[in-house]
Amino acid sequence: MGTRTATASMVRLCDMMDGDEGDAFVLMTLKEELSTRDGKPYFKVGFRDSQREVTFPVWQDSPHSEACRRDWSPGQFYKIRALYRETNYGPQLELRRIREVVELDAGDGFDPLMCLPQSRFSAEKMFAELMAIVEAEIADPAIRSLARDMLLANREAFCRFPAARRNHHAFAAGLLEHTLSVTRSTVYLADKYLEYYPDMQPPLNKSIAVAGAVLHDIGKLREYDLSPQGADYSAAGHLIGHILQGRDMLREAAAGKEMAPETLLRLEHVIVSHQRLPEWGSPKPPMTPEALIVHHADDLDAKLNMFATALATDANTGPVTSSKNPLRQHVFRGGNC
Amino acid sequence: MGTRTATASMVRLCDMMDGDEGDAFVLMTLKEELSTRDGKPYFKVGFRDSQREVTFPVWQDSPHSEACRRDWSPGQFYKIRALYRETNYGPQLELRRIREVVELDAGDGFDPLMCLPQSRFSAEKMFAELMAIVEAEIADPAIRSLARDMLLANREAFCRFPAARRNHHAFAAGLLEHTLSVTRSTVYLADKYLEYYPDMQPPLNKSIAVAGAVLHDIGKLREYDLSPQGADYSAAGHLIGHILQGRDMLREAAAGKEMAPETLLRLEHVIVSHQRLPEWGSPKPPMTPEALIVHHADDLDAKLNMFATALATDANTGPVTSSKNPLRQHVFRGGNC
Amino acid sequence: MGTRTATASMVRLCDMMDGDEGDAFVLMTLKEELSTRDGKPYFKVGFRDSQREVTFPVWQDSPHSEACRRDWSPGQFYKIRALYRETNYGPQLELRRIREVVELDAGDGFDPLMCLPQSRFSAEKMFAELMAIVEAEIADPAIRSLARDMLLANREAFCRFPAARRNHHAFAAGLLEHTLSVTRSTVYLADKYLEYYPDMQPPLNKSIAVAGAVLHDIGKLREYDLSPQGADYSAAGHLIGHILQGRDMLREAAAGKEMAPETLLRLEHVIVSHQRLPEWGSPKPPMTPEALIVHHADDLDAKLNMFATALATDANTGPVTSSKNPLRQHVFRGGNC
Amino acid sequence: MGTRTATASMVRLCDMMDGDEGDAFVLMTLKEELSTRDGKPYFKVGFRDSQREVTFPVWQDSPHSEACRRDWSPGQFYKIRALYRETNYGPQLELRRIREVVELDAGDGFDPLMCLPQSRFSAEKMFAELMAIVEAEIADPAIRSLARDMLLANREAFCRFPAARRNHHAFAAGLLEHTLSVTRSTVYLADKYLEYYPDMQPPLNKSIAVAGAVLHDIGKLREYDLSPQGADYSAAGHLIGHILQGRDMLREAAAGKEMAPETLLRLEHVIVSHQRLPEWGSPKPPMTPEALIVHHADDLDAKLNMFATALATDANTGPVTSSKNPLRQHVFRGGNC
Amino acid sequence: MGTRTATASMVRLCDMMDGDEGDAFVLMTLKEELSTRDGKPYFKVGFRDSQREVTFPVWQDSPHSEACRRDWSPGQFYKIRALYRETNYGPQLELRRIREVVELDAGDGFDPLMCLPQSRFSAEKMFAELMAIVEAEIADPAIRSLARDMLLANREAFCRFPAARRNHHAFAAGLLEHTLSVTRSTVYLADKYLEYYPDMQPPLNKSIAVAGAVLHDIGKLREYDLSPQGADYSAAGHLIGHILQGRDMLREAAAGKEMAPETLLRLEHVIVSHQRLPEWGSPKPPMTPEALIVHHADDLDAKLNMFATALATDANTGPVTSSKNPLRQHVFRGGNC
Amino acid sequence: MGTRTATASMVRLCDMMDGDEGDAFVLMTLKEELSTRDGKPYFKVGFRDSQREVTFPVWQDSPHSEACRRDWSPGQFYKIRALYRETNYGPQLELRRIREVVELDAGDGFDPLMCLPQSRFSAEKMFAELMAIVEAEIADPAIRSLARDMLLANREAFCRFPAARRNHHAFAAGLLEHTLSVTRSTVYLADKYLEYYPDMQPPLNKSIAVAGAVLHDIGKLREYDLSPQGADYSAAGHLIGHILQGRDMLREAAAGKEMAPETLLRLEHVIVSHQRLPEWGSPKPPMTPEALIVHHADDLDAKLNMFATALATDANTGPVTSSKNPLRQHVFRGGNC
Repeated sequence: MGTRTATASMVRLCDMMDGDEGDAFVLMTLKEELSTRDGKPYFKVGFRDSQREVTFPVWQDSPHSEACRRDWSPGQFYKIRALYRETNYGPQLELRRIREVVELDAGDGFDPLMCLPQSRFSAEKMFAELMAIVEAEIADPAIRSLARDMLLANREAFCRFPAARRNHHAFAAGLLEHTLSVTRSTVYLADKYLEYYPDMQPPLNKSIAVAGAVLHDIGKLREYDLSPQGADYSAAGHLIGHILQGRDMLREAAAGKEMAPETLLRLEHVIVSHQRLPEWGSPKPPMTPEALIVHHADDLDAKLNMFATALATDANTGPVTSSKNPLRQHVFRGGNC
Repeated sequence: MGTRTATASMVRLCDMMDGDEGDAFVLMTLKEELSTRDGKPYFKVGFRDSQREVTFPVWQDSPHSEACRRDWSPGQFYKIRALYRETNYGPQLELRRIREVVELDAGDGFDPLMCLPQSRFSAEKMFAELMAIVEAEIADPAIRSLARDMLLANREAFCRFPAARRNHHAFAAGLLEHTLSVTRSTVYLADKYLEYYPDMQPPLNKSIAVAGAVLHDIGKLREYDLSPQGADYSAAGHLIGHILQGRDMLREAAAGKEMAPETLLRLEHVIVSHQRLPEWGSPKPPMTPEALIVHHADDLDAKLNMFATALATDANTGPVTSSKNPLRQHVFRGGNC
Repeated sequence: MGTRTATASMVRLCDMMDGDEGDAFVLMTLKEELSTRDGKPYFKVGFRDSQREVTFPVWQDSPHSEACRRDWSPGQFYKIRALYRETNYGPQLELRRIREVVELDAGDGFDPLMCLPQSRFSAEKMFAELMAIVEAEIADPAIRSLARDMLLANREAFCRFPAARRNHHAFAAGLLEHTLSVTRSTVYLADKYLEYYPDMQPPLNKSIAVAGAVLHDIGKLREYDLSPQGADYSAAGHLIGHILQGRDMLREAAAGKEMAPETLLRLEHVIVSHQRLPEWGSPKPPMTPEALIVHHADDLDAKLNMFATALATDANTGPVTSSKNPLRQHVFRGGNC
Repeated sequence: MGTRTATASMVRLCDMMDGDEGDAFVLMTLKEELSTRDGKPYFKVGFRDSQREVTFPVWQDSPHSEACRRDWSPGQFYKIRALYRETNYGPQLELRRIREVVELDAGDGFDPLMCLPQSRFSAEKMFAELMAIVEAEIADPAIRSLARDMLLANREAFCRFPAARRNHHAFAAGLLEHTLSVTRSTVYLADKYLEYYPDMQPPLNKSIAVAGAVLHDIGKLREYDLSPQGADYSAAGHLIGHILQGRDMLREAAAGKEMAPETLLRLEHVIVSHQRLPEWGSPKPPMTPEALIVHHADDLDAKLNMFATALATDANTGPVTSSKNPLRQHVFRGGNC
Repeated sequence: MGTRTATASMVRLCDMMDGDEGDAFVLMTLKEELSTRDGKPYFKVGFRDSQREVTFPVWQDSPHSEACRRDWSPGQFYKIRALYRETNYGPQLELRRIREVVELDAGDGFDPLMCLPQSRFSAEKMFAELMAIVEAEIADPAIRSLARDMLLANREAFCRFPAARRNHHAFAAGLLEHTLSVTRSTVYLADKYLEYYPDMQPPLNKSIAVAGAVLHDIGKLREYDLSPQGADYSAAGHLIGHILQGRDMLREAAAGKEMAPETLLRLEHVIVSHQRLPEWGSPKPPMTPEALIVHHADDLDAKLNMFATALATDANTGPVTSSKNPLRQHVFRGGNC
Repeated sequence: MGTRTATASMVRLCDMMDGDEGDAFVLMTLKEELSTRDGKPYFKVGFRDSQREVTFPVWQDSPHSEACRRDWSPGQFYKIRALYRETNYGPQLELRRIREVVELDAGDGFDPLMCLPQSRFSAEKMFAELMAIVEAEIADPAIRSLARDMLLANREAFCRFPAARRNHHAFAAGLLEHTLSVTRSTVYLADKYLEYYPDMQPPLNKSIAVAGAVLHDIGKLREYDLSPQGADYSAAGHLIGHILQGRDMLREAAAGKEMAPETLLRLEHVIVSHQRLPEWGSPKPPMTPEALIVHHADDLDAKLNMFATALATDANTGPVTSSKNPLRQHVFRGGNC
């Protein structure tokens, strides 16, 4: 019952307005021991939910000072009661109470994902749509079965992984959002160019293109280690990289299947070449039409996400954003022409 | 009547089989005065229709030798009667009769376009489809009117120009085929990303994207001088280039129109940036989502045409084509995996 | 009368010595709300005249604190009475009085230009010299008339614009100083190489070279928006760039003139190619001797200005300057060999 | 007995002097149907043994003309009796007799390898030395067992494959010669730097370095298809490349073994990074000391072979070779300083 | 006597533990006049010995404040008595006494070198080993004599100079350590490849290779000016660079010797080309086998030192070091695979 | 007297018209033993004078056939009597008589230089003008003396060497023509920028700039070996290059002079940096204003000569030259705009 009551007062950190006080589930993202220039020691701590992160000092004379030093730990989830204030130093929290999240909090709606940035779309629905495309658009039964199995085997991970650590779709289920979008474009483009070049030899193989789109970034699941704080490169991610790792996953899944060697090879090639340039990680450029289509669908989708993110987050004034973004270029914001 | 009879026997050079004799309209493409190592002089001449080009010697003792030296001229159209033979030296023609095409030959179906390689699609239908897209998909009336006017003003040229001299869509109406394809992809991608990023500020402007696709390569009409033999760079094409010339055409057409300065600027930017990299001719990279979409639609369409052409024409054996093509890379042909 | 008196005591900020107090006209360049580590809030403000900029704090307990927060605005001109001090924190001002500049202050000699860095040379004289070169060195009447008209139409802007925002000649009338210098070198080099290559076909056209030098950077007038604080990129400057914009100005000015198409084309080409490399903004490299000469005259003049500026402003000790300058390289300062 | 007699008279093509006649086993390398400028048809044919290749015409009036057209086939081995002549057209053969090699010819010493260029060293001895290094220098039993098994499983291929198609060690057993040399250097360098950096954390792992050297190019066995005429890229060689394929072989061999994941990962990394630069095929640069050592041992060994080959084969006169070699640079030949 | 006593208590700064107090010889490396945000002025000073550097504030109320302002000087050696403390601000010193080092301190073991980072190996022994290699491995008497003389003439400098200011072997005698290691590898590689390519024309010249290794970086002795604080670029180092300067030293030393012009030229070429790429400072790539070997021996030795330094000093957690090191890449540290 | 008569009939090969017969001095440039496709052997021979080169066959049945095989030698000068004909195979010579040039022919005006392409300007006058500039424009006596001595010591070579083998000023005295032109531009630019930047510290040193221009390419005298057939790279030219060799010459000449070390260093730097980019051979970029000026004067002069040569020799039709020239770009020729 108490839980119910508590639930009644649960708020989301990202919904709090200046002066609000309430209970919220948050992830600790930062704890640094610092001191001011004149020697006053303090901890700089950070907490976040899916859409807001707040960083503030815990001074030595704070009632939480001792607990902070001894117990609090970045990567841990907490239930806090706090007053939210917007100040000259940016948003701040005055903590009233704080305790680690416990199992029972799930009853109040706690879910670790609620503390990480995430896709605007339902992971469940995106996954279902991706599966539906696999069933409907991959005519070759061996390829379809392979794509289906690989998706199902990695369902949970797809729903949690970002597409990249920083560059684009850097949020939970970002990999799924990006993969679905690339796959949708690929279906359109494969259909279109099949119609344009009906006599091409060998013919454009739509099953390979679509499965290639579905699987092009699957190696990210090995490139990153996922933790509550987000994704970080694994050792193998550093030394090998997602392009080779994704091809490994494909070959492992295909090992027990009946599949023409050339079909598998062309599918591997889509993964291997999807970044196009050696300096972007692809040892070979697209040498098949399927690989070319997936490369363009992927590149455009990633870049448009970077455009949208730059426009949404850049603090610059004037007709363009700063060039300090993953695109390393200005994005036009408009006005005063 | 004679004409009628003649028509009955007209054949297309590209349809002739080894041993066939017939009348055909052809374009002279080559006349070089050479001699064999042991001093025997001859003319190497070439004739083509839309799909076949034949090169052969006219020896000094040929009955056509004198006319060849004195009168024949590359770039001129001829009606020939000839025997077609396939030999160790490749296809050859034994000329029976030859005369310049005259106005009356139009009655037998002569059209200069029939002697140049051309799009597989009807220029008329492609133009109509492009106009229909302009009407249906460009919501902004000022932009729609501008795109419509520019297409109509350049209708005939669009139906004859290639998209490039050698790289891709290098045939009559190739510019139109390419433009239509890029525009169709742009409609799809603009619709799709409008739905994905409904809150982007400034919003993705579909009218600008679609008009930008329609107009992105229009500067080719000034970059090339068109002649019966095909397209060649004009003086201004060499010194200025189609990207700047296309923007000129847009600005000239917009001069008499009511159009918000920022709208025009964004449209100019689509043209200016559509090749993305400075070394490919774009002084600025895409800085708006519309420009980004048109760049990708254009790049993919050009490259897929290069793939198809390489696969259709490359004489290499083995699993890949030669890398001597506009892509400067191998294209996979398949087999023996 | 009071004005007279005031005038008597007016000083230039850049002339003040440690301990001086006086009245000066200045431009506010900065107002940031900050606080010290221990939470003491203050405003960091900046003021400048043509040769000195001073940045200092206004503390909350200052008599100007309230006015600073409420009224002061960067980009606004002020008349101040202040004590100038050189301290460990660099130069500082202790403000006695401060008010916005009013129209009457012109009587005391106020001119917005006096608060911006500016050319060491008289804009008026430089403009006159440039006009004189146009009259004397451009033999072709159509080109001369075009260059004359474009200069006269942009006289005021030429006398105020910098040649670049930061890289070189980044001060009022910098564009004029740079243009005049490039033009003078071009006259010398065109004369010289006309003499060296009298038989070149087509001949080096000195009129095109000189007019090209005069107009090569005129697009800067559209690339930048000028404000009292200096120049900033306009929207079109970002999306299109001064090379294309300068060519627009040329074509607009030539629209109503009699000029041989090839002459205009060669003149356009000088502007289009003057940066030589695509990655520096030129879609085409110099393909005429005139363009080649202007490129070299321009490049040398810009770089020498960067050398002089690096030598004058770099704070490094040792035999070379730092490499943190627009040249991205060290400049030799000499000593201890 | 006849065989004995025949053996007695067998010669090697490469040993024949101007005017010699004899029986030899050769590989047909070329058959092209050509004709002289004045229409005389002929076949240009080529035959080679391990160290000499001779190309000459078979004219229509030759007694071999019909057989040549109908039966002879490049890639087939022949026993010929011929007169060897050195002429203005280079070395020539006058064929007396020619027949396909048959099984029995093995009795006369025929071996396909005798018709291909091959290593100066005995493949058998090199293989034995490589195995001995594996046993002696790889202290880690799991790595040693893996390297041993992979060598044994590919013994025959190692003894036949070239290290590259053209660039370096382009002859039978070239892969083995190169691998042994790289491995020997790696043993030296690993020992040396272990001594230099005894405290490095993690320590340089000599077992990984040596095994990495042994296996660094093993993917060539999948990248090329071997035929009697030599090696050519396989389909997978084109689309995937030997670096990824070599790592596949390693992972397949390691699948059934006990090996610490990090050990396997570091070993994979040696293969993945051994070309160092993305544009040379390595998606990751060397990030471990073992990988760095193998890269340098490999690069030096390949380049020195190119130097030696350029010096041995270049026909240029003067102090340097031509730059038309895989190094794309001149090699110093000395003289006239 | 006091000195004796003092000696008894002399400690090395790098050996002090938290709470230790003792006398030490140190080099002052830093003195900056700063103030806290709230205006409290202080000096930030730094002192170092061969393996530790400590930076701390001297406040205005410190008993050393006046001496610090007036007398202390970076680059000067001091004898200090101090308490060593490890705090939240990193290691700190509380100074009890401080005075400049005087001549007599040599009696207590003072040597300027003891205050700079230095090679782990004895410079004397390394120099002796390098001389021994020269005597044993350079068969050509003229080359041997040249190498011997140049080493002897620069003995002291070799024992003090670093190999580079920051990139690798950046410590006293680093140049010697690096040179010896490169020379040792060169001896191995020259012997090895002499055996592999006994017929190469011109033959690999081991004397040139070994002398080239010994002398490849000797120009560093002119590129840097050595001071107690370490090495800094000289004026000529900036304007000319060590590759050209090293060749100067060689030519000067060879001026009075009998040496075949081609031998000298090949030796010069080893120095000139040892960095291989123009952008790394070599105007010519290695064009002789000797130059190629020295390049690889040098490059590997420098990079391995960078690996070892990155692994020893990088503060990053996770499976790799930061990429902020002279290699500009991550180095694998291992763990969690 | 005979000589007189002979002289009377001497003609220049380059002056002969179709059908002319006469005596001329020529250089043999080519002798190749070839045969026609049908086996007819012949020698292809070439002869040139300063402005024309003629290549033609000597058939086996020619009266000169035996002498040609046995005696004639490229690089040898001949006196010929020949009929000049312009044919379909280009210009041809029918030889009547031919003999080697003998010493006495000097009396008839023979000079080896008359058979090589050469500067349009008198070498003697150019040298005198260059000396005059040295005397008049180099104010610093030590620098003036150095430049004067180096010119005088290399007077003859300067009057014969080309500036480059193919790229620009590739004719006798081309080095002198180029050096004079660069020096003249440098005088202008140094004067001009001294006036513009009177306060630069250190000041622009005109003496260094002018001497740097005079000496910038002097290393060509060592980079090339000069022979009657023209210039070719020397061994040291290949392994070291003219930039380093020119600096050597400067240092050798300065060895016995009184000159401030910094002055010499700045002069060396002008030579070292005059190509600006490492990939063009300069290990350091211009770091002094003098070096910057010489670089621009040099680069423009070389490129304008390439423009003039491309325009004079390119056989392309259309608005631009081919891009197969040392500039690797088209040059505008004009017409049809």
